[in-house]
Amino acid sequence: MRAAVLHAPGDVRVEEVADPKITAPTDAIIRLSAACVCGSDLWPYCGIDSVDEPVPMGHEYVGVVEEVGSGVETVKPGQFVLGSFVASCGTCEICRSGYPSSCVHRVFMAQVGTQSERALIPHADGTLVPLPGTPDADLIPSLLAASDVLGTGWFGAVAAEAGPGKTVAVVGDGAVGLLAVLAAQQLGAERIIAMSRHEPRQRLAREFGATDIVTTRGDAGAAKIKELTGGLGAHSVVEAVGTQESMEQAIRSTRPGGHVGFVGVNHDVSLSGEELFFSQVHLVGGPAPVRQYLPELIDLIWQRKINPGKVFDLTLPLDEAAAAYRAMDERRAIKALLTV
Amino acid sequence: MRAAVLHAPGDVRVEEVADPKITAPTDAIIRLSAACVCGSDLWPYCGIDSVDEPVPMGHEYVGVVEEVGSGVETVKPGQFVLGSFVASCGTCEICRSGYPSSCVHRVFMAQVGTQSERALIPHADGTLVPLPGTPDADLIPSLLAASDVLGTGWFGAVAAEAGPGKTVAVVGDGAVGLLAVLAAQQLGAERIIAMSRHEPRQRLAREFGATDIVTTRGDAGAAKIKELTGGLGAHSVVEAVGTQESMEQAIRSTRPGGHVGFVGVNHDVSLSGEELFFSQVHLVGGPAPVRQYLPELIDLIWQRKINPGKVFDLTLPLDEAAAAYRAMDERRAIKALLTV
Repeated sequence: MRAAVLHAPGDVRVEEVADPKITAPTDAIIRLSAACVCGSDLWPYCGIDSVDEPVPMGHEYVGVVEEVGSGVETVKPGQFVLGSFVASCGTCEICRSGYPSSCVHRVFMAQVGTQSERALIPHADGTLVPLPGTPDADLIPSLLAASDVLGTGWFGAVAAEAGPGKTVAVVGDGAVGLLAVLAAQQLGAERIIAMSRHEPRQRLAREFGATDIVTTRGDAGAAKIKELTGGLGAHSVVEAVGTQESMEQAIRSTRPGGHVGFVGVNHDVSLSGEELFFSQVHLVGGPAPVRQYLPELIDLIWQRKINPGKVFDLTLPLDEAAAAYRAMDERRAIKALLTV
Repeated sequence: MRAAVLHAPGDVRVEEVADPKITAPTDAIIRLSAACVCGSDLWPYCGIDSVDEPVPMGHEYVGVVEEVGSGVETVKPGQFVLGSFVASCGTCEICRSGYPSSCVHRVFMAQVGTQSERALIPHADGTLVPLPGTPDADLIPSLLAASDVLGTGWFGAVAAEAGPGKTVAVVGDGAVGLLAVLAAQQLGAERIIAMSRHEPRQRLAREFGATDIVTTRGDAGAAKIKELTGGLGAHSVVEAVGTQESMEQAIRSTRPGGHVGFVGVNHDVSLSGEELFFSQVHLVGGPAPVRQYLPELIDLIWQRKINPGKVFDLTLPLDEAAAAYRAMDERRAIKALLTV
């Protein structure tokens, strides 16, 4: 089959690789309806995460089940399914407590690769959620978004305790940040401040529910959030970047007793214990437990109440994945969909 | 009046100072029933917090109102009262949201000093809670404990979401850590693991409700907690020290999705964003919002359902404050009460 493989920073190639094979009885194989590139794929692409050998790329997926292992009980060939970017057993104590992305048996799909025609899905019963039927073609982008960027933005908003009466600020205007805006709106937030300096992203943020746009960043951005909130800071802040500056911006934009949900994969971030202590903010983040939100998110998409697929502003065939990476890296595209 | 003053690291003197005076209409002056030394008084005493000029010491208090400013409405001379180590207005948005220790008008009582015969209490209406009557003498230590160490341990346990069905681990066996054990027990925790290497403190921890004692610390301590919790870590961890090692021990002892309440005043602590991200723990700490717990804590003490005053294992007259500091610094005493 055809699959995107990263050979070195900046060097993504779509090439022939072996078809996936069932090896564990709990595996399934799906044929993808579409694939896509994630902001987090850019960390190794940019060389910030090291690349020692050719690695398969991609971790988001929606598609049709082609084959299941002998131990798979709830998922059947022919079903349309989607799942999270973390495969999870669904039965361990951590899964049952609502944190499937920290499942004791978890497999990061980034290690498997899904920018390809087919993909192996471990722990199929725990991981995959069957769709209500065959999706209309125009729903595919939104369903694919649910696999990571929508679910991750949703977790960020939930972790930040976005809800009625709350002012929510979102740091980061990538697909995850924009979908955290959508999530905050769905969760009933009163005011949603998107921090963005890019006009097309500002427009999408407004479409997803942002009531205010702040164009400054860092400490100036945090000061602006305080100015907009009577000097106190936002109740809820979603961090969707993962750098030192963005984490500090998020913490400093939050009022005492407020909540920061951080979903940008942290890279070389060091937080001052003293600052955290005196800020008195609640902080939680990590790989989003997307699996637990999927039934709700699929329902919202299926009923066309939300349209998270709008984050895809570039569509290319899988064979042109390299161009998709370049466009995202150069911030010419928010998120690229790859047709397979 | 007589008051303890820190002149330099290791140099606490009890000397004549001016009596406090009402300067703001919202002030009150109380005569202390007893004073005490806190673990956090040791930071400047040890020279870890700098001491540039003689500073009044102490921030815990219970006593009788002697005088109130013209704007004080709910507190009357002659009333027995206690309050938190942070004076708070009680009316700002942050106070009303349950975080009076981050009140926009807050005054840290450590800047005022309460190891003295009398003390000035700012924001008296917001800060002071009248007791149901004149307390029996044997209740004074427990009431004094409520002012900080009990309230702080309580916040640690609440922030860590201690409760029914939960395994709670407590890092630190000072008065705050021991009272976090008591709080976890009152909050209904199923299992409470106290981390302590000191036999008298272990004994008190068991008396307060600890079901297990772990004597190792650092990463070995965290490994032991995992071993005791099926490899997952505790649901709830209270950090009551404030060092790099204790913060990491707390985070590494917590299961994914679990909660860390950190109440040790952090000193030179730097937390890895990557570790926090992948640990997926909830983290919140800071100066405890003790004021909000006082009505409940006073009631428990008044009804003799809890006896937090047991943390005082040394009683000396105020004039011997220097000896009290030495005993705590050398870990010969858990907490010293000063009679005035």
